[in-house]
Amino acid sequence: MAGLSDPALLSAAALAEAAERLRPHVHRTPVLRSGWLDREVGAEVFCKCENLQRTGAFKLRGALNAVFSLGDDELARGVVAHSSGNHAQALALAARERGTRATLVMPQSAPAVKVAAVRGYGARVILCPPTQAARKETVRRLVAEEGLVEIHSSNDPRIIAGAAGAARELLEEVAELDLLLVPVGGGGLLSGSALAAHYHAPATRVIGVEPAAAATASSSLARGEIVLSNDPRTVADGLLSNLGEHTFAVVRRLGAAVATVEEEAIVTAMRGVWERMKLVIEPSAAVTVAALLDRRLDVAGRRAGIILSGGNVDLDRLPWLETRA
Amino acid sequence: MAGLSDPALLSAAALAEAAERLRPHVHRTPVLRSGWLDREVGAEVFCKCENLQRTGAFKLRGALNAVFSLGDDELARGVVAHSSGNHAQALALAARERGTRATLVMPQSAPAVKVAAVRGYGARVILCPPTQAARKETVRRLVAEEGLVEIHSSNDPRIIAGAAGAARELLEEVAELDLLLVPVGGGGLLSGSALAAHYHAPATRVIGVEPAAAATASSSLARGEIVLSNDPRTVADGLLSNLGEHTFAVVRRLGAAVATVEEEAIVTAMRGVWERMKLVIEPSAAVTVAALLDRRLDVAGRRAGIILSGGNVDLDRLPWLETRA
Repeated sequence: MAGLSDPALLSAAALAEAAERLRPHVHRTPVLRSGWLDREVGAEVFCKCENLQRTGAFKLRGALNAVFSLGDDELARGVVAHSSGNHAQALALAARERGTRATLVMPQSAPAVKVAAVRGYGARVILCPPTQAARKETVRRLVAEEGLVEIHSSNDPRIIAGAAGAARELLEEVAELDLLLVPVGGGGLLSGSALAAHYHAPATRVIGVEPAAAATASSSLARGEIVLSNDPRTVADGLLSNLGEHTFAVVRRLGAAVATVEEEAIVTAMRGVWERMKLVIEPSAAVTVAALLDRRLDVAGRRAGIILSGGNVDLDRLPWLETRA
Repeated sequence: MAGLSDPALLSAAALAEAAERLRPHVHRTPVLRSGWLDREVGAEVFCKCENLQRTGAFKLRGALNAVFSLGDDELARGVVAHSSGNHAQALALAARERGTRATLVMPQSAPAVKVAAVRGYGARVILCPPTQAARKETVRRLVAEEGLVEIHSSNDPRIIAGAAGAARELLEEVAELDLLLVPVGGGGLLSGSALAAHYHAPATRVIGVEPAAAATASSSLARGEIVLSNDPRTVADGLLSNLGEHTFAVVRRLGAAVATVEEEAIVTAMRGVWERMKLVIEPSAAVTVAALLDRRLDVAGRRAGIILSGGNVDLDRLPWLETRA
């Protein structure tokens, strides 16, 4: 795709085109404030509620953009991806809306509610062992044997351009944000958000947040090359992916920083948002709130945007109740 | 207050005045749609998210309107009320914003998180046995001994005028609703909503929904006189109050109907909203969703508004997990 070799950047036009293409298919999610969060953090915090997006996560944006970019031959073959959940639901719905068939490779450890939701959108689900290696190998086999078209969950310019839409809407709606915090796993949301800020709010500093237990984005930026994780364990199971060549290039080129948060802080932040903001968010979405509550970043007196990236949670297994079981 | 004797109706001007008085102090809560809910119900459903209101419930509207209507002498004495939770939080915050002191009588069975929130707003909490009789007696004693001014949680024209604001905003924002469903306990929200519809959308039919286990509003309308409950047990602990003379008069005069829902349907609806809409609502707020999902009302093909009245829940005690403990 044009512009994504060196200098590694999708164009403003590519972002605008994706936004236009997606408009009929996505919710323009609300930006909510919280007196509690502002007081706790000592800042003005603007929460872009992508947990209220269709399929319960921002991931729909990238999946739709990718699937609606496919040619007839590719649509006839069908699409495949591996995902612990949100990309799976997103790709399943995107495929249904575009009239093609989706196959999702999901780890056996995925919450039952996510697997059921994917099947509910009419997609085929293939379960595999919960390792990155097994997931990738299963996709590779399906591409080879069945001719399916892989739509990676993050490392794809079409996914990045779609994911950029959430930050783009937030920056349109709220002027003069000093910071924009987003979760980072594979880096689709971070690189998309960094691009949106680059074109629409260049003074806004974009920061990714990831679990300390799976801090591969931080390590990658520090070393100047992509560091792969070794199947880390974190409550934020949506942030297990690694940066890829496309997302790493964008993040690096635009100078986005990455902060880390501890497991306990993620659970505390998640519970706080449920209790005080009445929003169901998943652990992966709570990392930015955790970074703010933990004062990992100096935001006092400033205006900070955060993207609450998703809300898909198994309501029978809440992290603050798990330890008692 | 003018207009609330017979013919029992607050004026459109009183509602407008309350809305104006409250504007700087309340959120204009969002109206959200859900593909899931529309499909399940076969209708267009518009959800007014008062769970996202300050203090987590619509109750703030009435409490603010009442406290901001007090004279200097009353403000000097301080206010008192009994409440299982949401009115308590609302009155505590309203008193703080108006610079007076609130005393809240709460049942010993109230969720710890609600008691803590009330104290967090700087109010005095007095716990009493969890019966309506004990709650009323404790308030009566405080009024007599300390000269406090009682602000009842629902049966007060100022409370009704404030509560009307949620429906008023919804009806302003969404045209041509066929129905408007709201929970009914003491009837503040139902009578306020009926008044708002009466003045701003007379073609919209207003329906209260209550737990079958605490169906005193239905009984009262059927008998033509206020029926008192005998400390019923329902998961919807915010709907234990009875209609009072003011709320009963408005509801009867405007011909609002009341439907009932079973306990299991309330829990299912609550869980559905958390899981699919990513909104934390309390059981009392789930009764309208339960009525829709259970097809208790013929809404197919129509436009229905509902007020998601609150989201204050003890996250350590979720009803769908309780039976397993």
